[in-house]
Amino acid sequence: MKAENRTGYQTVEYRNKPQGVATACAVGPREGRGPLGDKFDLVAQSSEFGQKSYEKAEAALLREACRICLSKAGHGEKSVQAMLGGDLLNQIMASALTARELKIPFLGLYGACSTMAESLLVGGMLCDGGYASPLLCTAGSHYATAERQYRYPLEYACQRTPAAQWTVTGAGAVMLSLPGEQEKKPLAQLTRGCIGRVVDMGIADANNMGAAMAPAAAATLCAYFDDTGDTPADFDRIITGDLGMVGRELLLEWTKKLGHDIPREKMMDCGLTIFHPDQDSHAGGSGCGCAASVLSAYILPNIQRGEWRRVLFMATGALLSPTTSQQGETIPGIAHLVWLSHRPAKEDL
Amino acid sequence: MKAENRTGYQTVEYRNKPQGVATACAVGPREGRGPLGDKFDLVAQSSEFGQKSYEKAEAALLREACRICLSKAGHGEKSVQAMLGGDLLNQIMASALTARELKIPFLGLYGACSTMAESLLVGGMLCDGGYASPLLCTAGSHYATAERQYRYPLEYACQRTPAAQWTVTGAGAVMLSLPGEQEKKPLAQLTRGCIGRVVDMGIADANNMGAAMAPAAAATLCAYFDDTGDTPADFDRIITGDLGMVGRELLLEWTKKLGHDIPREKMMDCGLTIFHPDQDSHAGGSGCGCAASVLSAYILPNIQRGEWRRVLFMATGALLSPTTSQQGETIPGIAHLVWLSHRPAKEDL
Repeated sequence: MKAENRTGYQTVEYRNKPQGVATACAVGPREGRGPLGDKFDLVAQSSEFGQKSYEKAEAALLREACRICLSKAGHGEKSVQAMLGGDLLNQIMASALTARELKIPFLGLYGACSTMAESLLVGGMLCDGGYASPLLCTAGSHYATAERQYRYPLEYACQRTPAAQWTVTGAGAVMLSLPGEQEKKPLAQLTRGCIGRVVDMGIADANNMGAAMAPAAAATLCAYFDDTGDTPADFDRIITGDLGMVGRELLLEWTKKLGHDIPREKMMDCGLTIFHPDQDSHAGGSGCGCAASVLSAYILPNIQRGEWRRVLFMATGALLSPTTSQQGETIPGIAHLVWLSHRPAKEDL
Repeated sequence: MKAENRTGYQTVEYRNKPQGVATACAVGPREGRGPLGDKFDLVAQSSEFGQKSYEKAEAALLREACRICLSKAGHGEKSVQAMLGGDLLNQIMASALTARELKIPFLGLYGACSTMAESLLVGGMLCDGGYASPLLCTAGSHYATAERQYRYPLEYACQRTPAAQWTVTGAGAVMLSLPGEQEKKPLAQLTRGCIGRVVDMGIADANNMGAAMAPAAAATLCAYFDDTGDTPADFDRIITGDLGMVGRELLLEWTKKLGHDIPREKMMDCGLTIFHPDQDSHAGGSGCGCAASVLSAYILPNIQRGEWRRVLFMATGALLSPTTSQQGETIPGIAHLVWLSHRPAKEDL
């Protein structure tokens, strides 16, 4: 038996067209002051979000995003058949603590800042294959926990380099469901996905994540085009998670080298969308919560309204840890991709 | 549309019966001196395994397990459609570094010491659903990295408590494939799986993982029996990952309370199998590498030979991080389960 839902080397087909039926996000105050400020479901008044530590605040934001999403979908925790997700904390603790409260069967994932795309990619397969529906795909991050986790504690007041990115304080959740289980118009449907490979071109600077992730993003995007025969012209938007200013330029260069010319006006990067240029976020936003909250607040509603009909959503992750960085390792990158379409239209089938 | 491969609240059905077609493991010297010493594919002569750090040694052991498994299966990296796995390092770096070398499309998982079961559970769904076949399910751990990660650096020479467990230095890999793709007799087939929920009964002692994980193990096992109507009598062995001496007793108590009496002689715990009692490992072995290497070296060969025909394999994870422990959090537990059967027999279908 061959894997019948596999196309080419890395691409999977969602033949039953799992649908995003509800989404929610919860972000921090800085994100609330950004261009998408009025589109988030919840904006915390402080980064502590009423908790005793930033880690607990991160978990609380993720929990709220999940709870709002459950409520929008009209589901109790008991009717949701799986929760998939991860975050940037050691041992993905924000997700574990959230899963402990929600009591939904839980599958922990880790793909650094690519986690929201990994969650949709894997959740899409579990839903499409009839193993779990509805299910919840999640990811989140917090600026203060990520800084002390990966770089320096905030108290150190380290000066940021121009290529540095600002980890988004935020979390997003998307409820996926097989078609026909709900009456409301879906946000989007999953059509295909592409499982990323780990690519490392030798970047070792934890303050230049964009450069570390761009080759992996180019590899996944070009693998998708090569596997399927699709071209950039087939899509309204090609959206990256958090390549930022540096990474976006490198992605355009790399994809061109690999034989796929992406028109600049089709590109969107969540990290360059979530903050105003004058918010001092340097090369842009980052973190799993960046792609997750922009997906929830901006991308999915745009697809639901039909403003964009065919979107490639590709979140990118820099697979570093402080330990391996201290041991001189370079930063492996990964990018996972899902094709999100405006609700079932003949041309997408 | 309903999720047609779902039974009850947490159980999934593998209707196409994905098969384990090859497996390999690589362990450290202490494990090599244990009762299964002659069954491991590779026993390192030292815990450093020729690397400059224990973290790099952990990654190297995982890489070797994967390479030997690929070679046994007769597959090159290019023909393997996905690698799933994780480990106990921050940001699952051993797995990321391995995936960087193998270049196989990679999905990072994290379920603490339950990771090998999570990998088989999710990998089983991706294979069964026709999204990836063959695919590689992996997990690994290292005593020295886990001690400095979760407890104290070895140099501190902290005295171990009686309930403490010894993290296994080892890694395991299992190649799953849809039936009919290979000629050799499979090791085992996947029949059903059960996605665990996070359960926390308030244990906060990082030196008593067995007690933290036992309630989650009982919850998953009883959910499986309740979902399917199966009973302990239907299985030759019910195998836990690393509950150890303390956790095993608690599991027997908890399952009894939940209405399922597990005969003691059907139980096996990988943590109590991998070391001799005189190897000073206190309550037993632990770590993702414990369940992974015992599965590979001992459980799958026993199933292939037909000594055991129906086995529930359930690895358990303690979802703690040093940060949350320092912040006073208790330890959430999780357990994922897969039913492994002797090669397709009518009574299993």
